[in-house]
Amino acid sequence: MPKVGILGATGYTAYELIRILLRNPEVEIVAATTRQDGNPPIHEIHPSLYGRLDLACENLTAEEVGQRCDYVFCALPHVASMTAIPDLLAAGTKVVDLSADYRLNDPAVYEKWYGHVHTDPTRLGDTVYGLPELYRDRIPGKDLVANPGCYTSTSILALAPLVKQSLIEPTGILIDAKSGVSGAGRSPKLGTLFSECNESLSAYGVGTHRHQPEIEQVLTDVGEEAVQVTFTPHLIPMDRGILCTIYPQLKESTSQEALLDLYREFYADCPFVRIVEHLPRTKDVAQTNYIDITVRFNRDQLIVLAALDNLIKGASGVAVQNFNLLAGFDETTALLV
Amino acid sequence: MPKVGILGATGYTAYELIRILLRNPEVEIVAATTRQDGNPPIHEIHPSLYGRLDLACENLTAEEVGQRCDYVFCALPHVASMTAIPDLLAAGTKVVDLSADYRLNDPAVYEKWYGHVHTDPTRLGDTVYGLPELYRDRIPGKDLVANPGCYTSTSILALAPLVKQSLIEPTGILIDAKSGVSGAGRSPKLGTLFSECNESLSAYGVGTHRHQPEIEQVLTDVGEEAVQVTFTPHLIPMDRGILCTIYPQLKESTSQEALLDLYREFYADCPFVRIVEHLPRTKDVAQTNYIDITVRFNRDQLIVLAALDNLIKGASGVAVQNFNLLAGFDETTALLV
Amino acid sequence: MPKVGILGATGYTAYELIRILLRNPEVEIVAATTRQDGNPPIHEIHPSLYGRLDLACENLTAEEVGQRCDYVFCALPHVASMTAIPDLLAAGTKVVDLSADYRLNDPAVYEKWYGHVHTDPTRLGDTVYGLPELYRDRIPGKDLVANPGCYTSTSILALAPLVKQSLIEPTGILIDAKSGVSGAGRSPKLGTLFSECNESLSAYGVGTHRHQPEIEQVLTDVGEEAVQVTFTPHLIPMDRGILCTIYPQLKESTSQEALLDLYREFYADCPFVRIVEHLPRTKDVAQTNYIDITVRFNRDQLIVLAALDNLIKGASGVAVQNFNLLAGFDETTALLV
Amino acid sequence: MPKVGILGATGYTAYELIRILLRNPEVEIVAATTRQDGNPPIHEIHPSLYGRLDLACENLTAEEVGQRCDYVFCALPHVASMTAIPDLLAAGTKVVDLSADYRLNDPAVYEKWYGHVHTDPTRLGDTVYGLPELYRDRIPGKDLVANPGCYTSTSILALAPLVKQSLIEPTGILIDAKSGVSGAGRSPKLGTLFSECNESLSAYGVGTHRHQPEIEQVLTDVGEEAVQVTFTPHLIPMDRGILCTIYPQLKESTSQEALLDLYREFYADCPFVRIVEHLPRTKDVAQTNYIDITVRFNRDQLIVLAALDNLIKGASGVAVQNFNLLAGFDETTALLV
Repeated sequence: MPKVGILGATGYTAYELIRILLRNPEVEIVAATTRQDGNPPIHEIHPSLYGRLDLACENLTAEEVGQRCDYVFCALPHVASMTAIPDLLAAGTKVVDLSADYRLNDPAVYEKWYGHVHTDPTRLGDTVYGLPELYRDRIPGKDLVANPGCYTSTSILALAPLVKQSLIEPTGILIDAKSGVSGAGRSPKLGTLFSECNESLSAYGVGTHRHQPEIEQVLTDVGEEAVQVTFTPHLIPMDRGILCTIYPQLKESTSQEALLDLYREFYADCPFVRIVEHLPRTKDVAQTNYIDITVRFNRDQLIVLAALDNLIKGASGVAVQNFNLLAGFDETTALLV
Repeated sequence: MPKVGILGATGYTAYELIRILLRNPEVEIVAATTRQDGNPPIHEIHPSLYGRLDLACENLTAEEVGQRCDYVFCALPHVASMTAIPDLLAAGTKVVDLSADYRLNDPAVYEKWYGHVHTDPTRLGDTVYGLPELYRDRIPGKDLVANPGCYTSTSILALAPLVKQSLIEPTGILIDAKSGVSGAGRSPKLGTLFSECNESLSAYGVGTHRHQPEIEQVLTDVGEEAVQVTFTPHLIPMDRGILCTIYPQLKESTSQEALLDLYREFYADCPFVRIVEHLPRTKDVAQTNYIDITVRFNRDQLIVLAALDNLIKGASGVAVQNFNLLAGFDETTALLV
Repeated sequence: MPKVGILGATGYTAYELIRILLRNPEVEIVAATTRQDGNPPIHEIHPSLYGRLDLACENLTAEEVGQRCDYVFCALPHVASMTAIPDLLAAGTKVVDLSADYRLNDPAVYEKWYGHVHTDPTRLGDTVYGLPELYRDRIPGKDLVANPGCYTSTSILALAPLVKQSLIEPTGILIDAKSGVSGAGRSPKLGTLFSECNESLSAYGVGTHRHQPEIEQVLTDVGEEAVQVTFTPHLIPMDRGILCTIYPQLKESTSQEALLDLYREFYADCPFVRIVEHLPRTKDVAQTNYIDITVRFNRDQLIVLAALDNLIKGASGVAVQNFNLLAGFDETTALLV
Repeated sequence: MPKVGILGATGYTAYELIRILLRNPEVEIVAATTRQDGNPPIHEIHPSLYGRLDLACENLTAEEVGQRCDYVFCALPHVASMTAIPDLLAAGTKVVDLSADYRLNDPAVYEKWYGHVHTDPTRLGDTVYGLPELYRDRIPGKDLVANPGCYTSTSILALAPLVKQSLIEPTGILIDAKSGVSGAGRSPKLGTLFSECNESLSAYGVGTHRHQPEIEQVLTDVGEEAVQVTFTPHLIPMDRGILCTIYPQLKESTSQEALLDLYREFYADCPFVRIVEHLPRTKDVAQTNYIDITVRFNRDQLIVLAALDNLIKGASGVAVQNFNLLAGFDETTALLV
């Protein structure tokens, strides 16, 4: 029975990880870390786990976690992640990293967008990007999986079939993205207070959001030509959910039905991608590992719409998909509820 | 002291009209209509007016309302509006129509998008479009003002300076629009139930929303060349507010500062248009008649962002602006709170 | 493998039933009814079930459903339920009724509170009240289980240990109850529109809510003396969740710790009752079948607080608990996620 | 024209104060303080004030503010307030203090509930409690007004007519109180993050909330016998609004209509108290200075329900009522919108 640990157990993605892993009776959660002292039981930090998991949150080093676990989910912020992961790997554990530290291949791009010199650059290009729908075959056997960002999963899965088939112009792709507030994390900040977000709506990070280079890197890899997107995120007064409304320019005219068929074929082997005819709602994928995708036309303008739960398919659900592939479980284990 | 009436007093826009008009001590509200029987006091329909307005809602004909009032706000649904308005005008009253019935100039376009033959087509092209920021000089002296749609005001005001100066391509303008739920009205429908909307987010009316031809008609008038937009509305889990994120294609490169200056100059005489440097939030314009607009670049892609309160600047606030111009009040009367 | 059907499949409780039952691979859902024509697939009514359940919603009679199924969940409104259930039972199926029709023992009380003559009165007193924490032993072998109301489960479970031990005065018990909007169902009504509920809070049904006699009947049964409560429900701007804040009068003084011990012992065999030290939050039980209960003192005044998810533990979760007991599954099957 | 300042201008109550004061053309706002450096314009802190108020937020001492202003609203936290106010008063300004520092008469009670020794105890019992509905005559001419707490205003106004007439038992009064999140202030804290509050509901501060002694002190003063209440606050997932559901024990039986008449008479001269027949909703008083109160019976149990906007009638609106009385304006100036 694999022993599993979570580095950085106080946030929302850590909580969702635990909730999902508890559904797999063949997994044992043996470590959860926090910088708080006093070894608080996990239910003091996540009260909904009361009576469900008997585990203390400990202030452990990466090395200690690595020695105790076969697999570790690293839910630390960026920078903290690339500090801990070499120690985890040295201890012989396998790692799914939910931070951004190993997603970008080029340390210069990392430095430009994250404002930090990458301290583990040799591992960068070598790490698999953990989007099983695109890279399933490369994941088993790896030591380190870079779990994708929430906006990036949504955008990439919505565009990959078009980019792969070279049906759209590789530049000038407009992604108007909307996310619930949980995507901003659990650290108290003015901008994520209830009274700031509720009954409010705004764009943020226009032109500066770090998921833009990640989307471009992966879609460039998929399409084998340089992809450029304009990514505009918005904060929506809801807890969870992402909807991306995407406006690509088709090279040649086609039909909604032909495109839906293309998508269905592209994702035929992907149990968590649903190509739907109706307009996706975040509510329909909330608390699930599904992403719902459809396409529409307004005159000749193609519009691709995709929705997922940012904490599940956008973070902890796909992390468990990756873990399942690493640990030899069926890809859907604990993820179909 | 002008006597004012409201045709269709049970909805949200009627409530906001009353709330605003009560701030003008030189206006007397003398009629409010409903199809309900029993002449319920207005506070049974809008409890927040308890003790503020002593008025019964009556099941009056348009003719009766016209005889009692100098000015009438018509807050009926489309089709009902164009049935009532000829009678109101025949009775000698002046009308601000909040429905869509007199916004489009071409009865064929009306029929195509609204699915009804227009029954008052001769008045169509002759009616002033009640967006004071563009047509202020044409409003005084008119008998009938077609109050703009909420999405359309936002989109038009966000684009007019660029279109007027011919700085952007007239076609291929993408408008990704987001609205709170009150825009859908107060009639009970499955789609606007709390438990359907809350914690949910989706696009709707993709390619079919009736504000698209209205935006195109007005911007074509502003720019004197045919404008085409792709308008994609989304329903946001909040009560009130609209944010439009707009992606036009610039003909020549320019800077954010140059564009902000252009906007400031264009709207120099408009007390309710605020050209801001920060990203607009709907919360900052809620309960006000302001529209906040800014521009941003992501690489070379221009992005225009605009926010207003759909029930105030998007409906009842601009209706009172129009009324003020018709009745000889200062344009801002009762609207700066 | 038991064949299961759902009478009245369009509401929220029906959706939750399906979602829970899909987790039990040894159950087959073979019928779902609607009054809509055209046999719409279930995912047209509940889009989140897309790809998860291949079933049409049919306009079937109770008799037809009864012939097709071994077990039926009746999710019809009251009155409709007592019309259908005799036919279901005559067809030899076992029924969990989620309506109120078989909860009250006395047809006169039913008529007083529901305003209808009960048409199946002989079955009333004979039906088991489906609260497994109190009546687990009586459920197996029954043909008909009356599933409890959401407020009533919360209130009864919060008070049963005190009433059973006769620690509190049987009258003058104040229950200040708060519920999310989904408890009001999925039929469009003015009062449950997003724009009415959001950013609003009010009491409703003061002195007239139908769960009051149900709470009193069951607690009277538990305590063997006549219990009277003052039940005051409030509508909270959230989708799901109930919190009851209860003020009983203790007969003799005691301590918080002694009472928590009493509760822990009383519910020792109940996997879904969690006696917690912290103040319960609805968020911590959302999407689960748990009820969290604690007690507090303010000077000498005892306060009991209890929270559950009104659609799960308050409706469909306990319905599946009851089904599990009827069908011979472990009580927790499909309910621990 | 009186010169007005705000000490502690970054919070929600300060923002509401400014919004209200801007409606009075005979008031000049000349100072707003912050501990932030750089003298940010007020619209950087409250973007909705963009273009409405040309004022920098300065890091001023209380003395400097006192010298510049005739009237100061002190919107600092407790402790900070009692440090600043002696300097303000020494400079000859009049002060409305929105903190709790001068509400309680007894420094020992203050120390017990707030955990700080009061540093200005001689002024305590001498300060007027700024609830104009009870103490209107004592306010004009005062130097310092202690503005009431939000829960306390609601509770006191709901109970004062009963206590004054000695119609209810003075002890055992249960106040089940519910508040929106803005009542918790604008400082980032885990418990007020959107993702913690949204879709959640819980009690907090049971037995320990500081408004309990304040309610008891004022009602004891009103009734001239010692009043004791059990005050239980709850956090509601909405921005603004308080509803108190209050369960007193009547000494003699009476009727709903007799009580409503008593309330109407008691508050006959109070323009912001509305005695209504329907159940109060926070939405109906949002953005206003009204408090809506009604009474109901459930069998013989009296229930008093009262709703107000915690930021307006519960804080900044009543503060301006007090200011109006101090400065010689009509009590309703700027408050009826």
